[in-house]
Amino acid sequence: MVWDAWGIPSGHAPLPEKIRTLLVQVFGVSGESMARRDEGNVPLRASALSQAQLTGLSAVVGPERVRTDHRARLLRAGGKSTPDLLRRRSTDPQDAPDAVVFPADHDEVLGVLSYCAERGVAVVPFGGGTSVVGGVDPARDGFEAVVALDLRRLSAMTSLDEVSHTATLGAGLTGPQAEALLSARGFSLGHFPQSFEFASIGGFAATRSSGQASAGYGRFDDMIQHLRVATPRGTLDLGRAPASAAGPDLRELFSGSEGALGVITEVTLRVHPVPETVAYQAWSFPDFATGAAALRSVIQTGAAPTVLRLSDEAETGLNLARAGDIGGAPVAGCLAVTTFEGTAAHVEARSAEAHALLAAAGGTALGEHPAREWEHGRFAAPYLRDALLDTGILCETLETATNWSNLAELKAKVTAALADSLGGQGTPPLVMCHISHTYPTGASLYFTIIAKQLDDPITQWHTAKRAVGDAIAAAGGTITHHHAVGRDHRPWMSGEIGDLGVQVLRAVKQTVDPAGILNPGKLIP
Amino acid sequence: MVWDAWGIPSGHAPLPEKIRTLLVQVFGVSGESMARRDEGNVPLRASALSQAQLTGLSAVVGPERVRTDHRARLLRAGGKSTPDLLRRRSTDPQDAPDAVVFPADHDEVLGVLSYCAERGVAVVPFGGGTSVVGGVDPARDGFEAVVALDLRRLSAMTSLDEVSHTATLGAGLTGPQAEALLSARGFSLGHFPQSFEFASIGGFAATRSSGQASAGYGRFDDMIQHLRVATPRGTLDLGRAPASAAGPDLRELFSGSEGALGVITEVTLRVHPVPETVAYQAWSFPDFATGAAALRSVIQTGAAPTVLRLSDEAETGLNLARAGDIGGAPVAGCLAVTTFEGTAAHVEARSAEAHALLAAAGGTALGEHPAREWEHGRFAAPYLRDALLDTGILCETLETATNWSNLAELKAKVTAALADSLGGQGTPPLVMCHISHTYPTGASLYFTIIAKQLDDPITQWHTAKRAVGDAIAAAGGTITHHHAVGRDHRPWMSGEIGDLGVQVLRAVKQTVDPAGILNPGKLIP
Repeated sequence: MVWDAWGIPSGHAPLPEKIRTLLVQVFGVSGESMARRDEGNVPLRASALSQAQLTGLSAVVGPERVRTDHRARLLRAGGKSTPDLLRRRSTDPQDAPDAVVFPADHDEVLGVLSYCAERGVAVVPFGGGTSVVGGVDPARDGFEAVVALDLRRLSAMTSLDEVSHTATLGAGLTGPQAEALLSARGFSLGHFPQSFEFASIGGFAATRSSGQASAGYGRFDDMIQHLRVATPRGTLDLGRAPASAAGPDLRELFSGSEGALGVITEVTLRVHPVPETVAYQAWSFPDFATGAAALRSVIQTGAAPTVLRLSDEAETGLNLARAGDIGGAPVAGCLAVTTFEGTAAHVEARSAEAHALLAAAGGTALGEHPAREWEHGRFAAPYLRDALLDTGILCETLETATNWSNLAELKAKVTAALADSLGGQGTPPLVMCHISHTYPTGASLYFTIIAKQLDDPITQWHTAKRAVGDAIAAAGGTITHHHAVGRDHRPWMSGEIGDLGVQVLRAVKQTVDPAGILNPGKLIP
Repeated sequence: MVWDAWGIPSGHAPLPEKIRTLLVQVFGVSGESMARRDEGNVPLRASALSQAQLTGLSAVVGPERVRTDHRARLLRAGGKSTPDLLRRRSTDPQDAPDAVVFPADHDEVLGVLSYCAERGVAVVPFGGGTSVVGGVDPARDGFEAVVALDLRRLSAMTSLDEVSHTATLGAGLTGPQAEALLSARGFSLGHFPQSFEFASIGGFAATRSSGQASAGYGRFDDMIQHLRVATPRGTLDLGRAPASAAGPDLRELFSGSEGALGVITEVTLRVHPVPETVAYQAWSFPDFATGAAALRSVIQTGAAPTVLRLSDEAETGLNLARAGDIGGAPVAGCLAVTTFEGTAAHVEARSAEAHALLAAAGGTALGEHPAREWEHGRFAAPYLRDALLDTGILCETLETATNWSNLAELKAKVTAALADSLGGQGTPPLVMCHISHTYPTGASLYFTIIAKQLDDPITQWHTAKRAVGDAIAAAGGTITHHHAVGRDHRPWMSGEIGDLGVQVLRAVKQTVDPAGILNPGKLIP
């Protein structure tokens, strides 16, 4: 990815004229776009690693696999949250890891961790760099130096069990790389988060990623059969069977461990045959409450769609769910998207069952087209954010989840907190929301927020983020459904798991990482 | 339950004559049944608790809630494994907890734990007492005294969310008690392990129980939304949403914690509307491999049966899967049972899809009757075991799980280890097996073993258990799919999670239970 924005250069495009006009009208921005900086001119502090330390790391991974050049460091300067991107757009000196280390395999990861634990060098595991919660910030947190441990060379599919539908994948494989290896053998990952094109298998596991097909294929943590984890104290091989009663499930302690308890080097996953058939069906509901109740009836009955999502009135009105037509004619009501994958018989039965339930719950079938349009544009939103940021618009997303019975209240509380906080700063926001992950007992809420930038947009957003995080906690939501904790959600972790829960995490960390070098400043308060 | 056998007195019956004749012929036993002992005459060691300690415990829960009488202690003398039952049939003095304490609520549990941690008294949480792995043995493990913490008074359903399909249930509720509370409101637990009639909600969670409807409703750990856990260091409230990315999932550390990391006092579960319809369909397959492949196609396609099970040739031949006809005319092939629950439309679509898959995979539909017969007798097998034990027959079960691709080999290795070990002792066994829990990636294997008892049947079985446990580990199975670890599987825990995994568990225990009073000698090596 480019260092100061999402994705690859060819993904970036100027704002559509319709949107630019809208922004000028609604938010009073000029409509001009700022130019980005030339990455070669970005001031970076010098690497804090000594020559002896670089030599020591080179002894583990080879000299050409320890990089301290400007570009290598800049590209691992952090993740892709809006504050990250705003910081890169500022002219302040940029923080970056002191070196980037590229281990070849699990044993080299162990070697790097062992070396760094001995010398007191912090280690930030680095996959796709798509974190939006500060999860890959090069935080030193009291250590003199920090290295980014780039896992891209752990990129093999070491086994595919075509009978059991499992694949063992290197942590450094990106979504498309893993999908290509699998599809050549007739299988699919079934995991398509918005970060899919860049994020890595290890990152999916370390952050409890959840993809857009989660209704059908589950969250990434649900798919994990086995994790191989390197720690400064050695290796953990976790998961011996599809399910077990052999005590606590330690996979679930290292899923979501965000590089703070170990480096996931290899994941064995449940995979899926490439579906024979995919059926698409979009729906319109008169309002969000009706649509949410309809989705609930589908997931609670077990009608088993692969994708099941619902945009609220604001998101539907702006066509944000249909990338091909963003900013087009306003659309009334709430758009829902369903897809069904599997054998022809399976898809036919499931889509018929869901169709009957959604129609009975007040939905109007819109045909395939809007659902296909959604799928076509589903990885594009982060590019749009960059174009908005360049135009003086603050744009960020956040997400939570709760039980169905609490969903409307949580949505109202989050929206109010954003309106109060940003409105109170003189920048009333436009808040849009969708449900993208459903469970029999509840659902996620994903918010997109747009407002005019203030002179210090980072502080502007941090103020809003604090307010909305507190509102989520007070309203009984989880501080994150699929973006993880990183640095940004750490203040809410005690509320999430309690003080004793935090002590449990600290005890685990002390056991596997007594020197505390693993991704310091993240996850654990 | 009665102290020296499974269940309630009215559940016990003499062996059917056909079976008795078979046992005489095959195993050369006399066919006579031993009489059981009068529980009043069983020698128990005196309670090791001082009067001051009893007074101290009484101050927490009330004097009438601390019992040291013979019967109260005897009924918490341990679980219901075959060695447990054989030990109770011996004339040796019986071990038992030094007192039984009955807290009223979470706070009283905290009070008992705090008192016992201070005085160095071991605490064994006690639910239904159905453990078959030594999980509720009154082990002192270096402490001078041990109390059984009977949770039966934690028996309220404190909330039912009819929108979100969740219920909050006290840990002490038995399966039928919970089901009665739920069904009065139109819901069902959906969790029916063989221990259902006696086991408790807290025990299901603490042992990662898996019920016979797991194909449809999941394992018990899958159903858990929230756990409330009392520890000597305070309370843990875990689980804020249907799913979360807020770090490691600590629910999964306390699910399966078997009373060694805390006392689960309350569980919020996903529950299910009482199904509109239940469809039954039994199948016959020519052999186990064909049947297993058929089950695999059903679960991998997502045809979503509620129950999906397959008996091997030996089990089918003895009609063990059809309690009404055990010992009847031998049946060829392998019997499979499917049921489907839900709305009428849902059941019709699912059963049609599964029917087509099972028929295509070589199955012959046998109609409803054998499936209904299986359901009718599904909680009865442990009573049969008692009758066998009384007739000089060794009868025990064990279970494991692995990937589909490894299932045949694991089954062969387990069977061989049992044949070698028991055969080597001069008591060649009859080994039967079924698949009762299926996953897209694999399945469980549940073995029933029958052999002639030697003079010391406990040692006879321990020798076989050691051999078969080693065989399971060597063949890549998990040491337990749903019976838990307890005392009996502890020797294989290092193999299951590695030495570093064991250190992680010890660190967690040290954090929540620094005095080590919680269920000592169980789970953690």
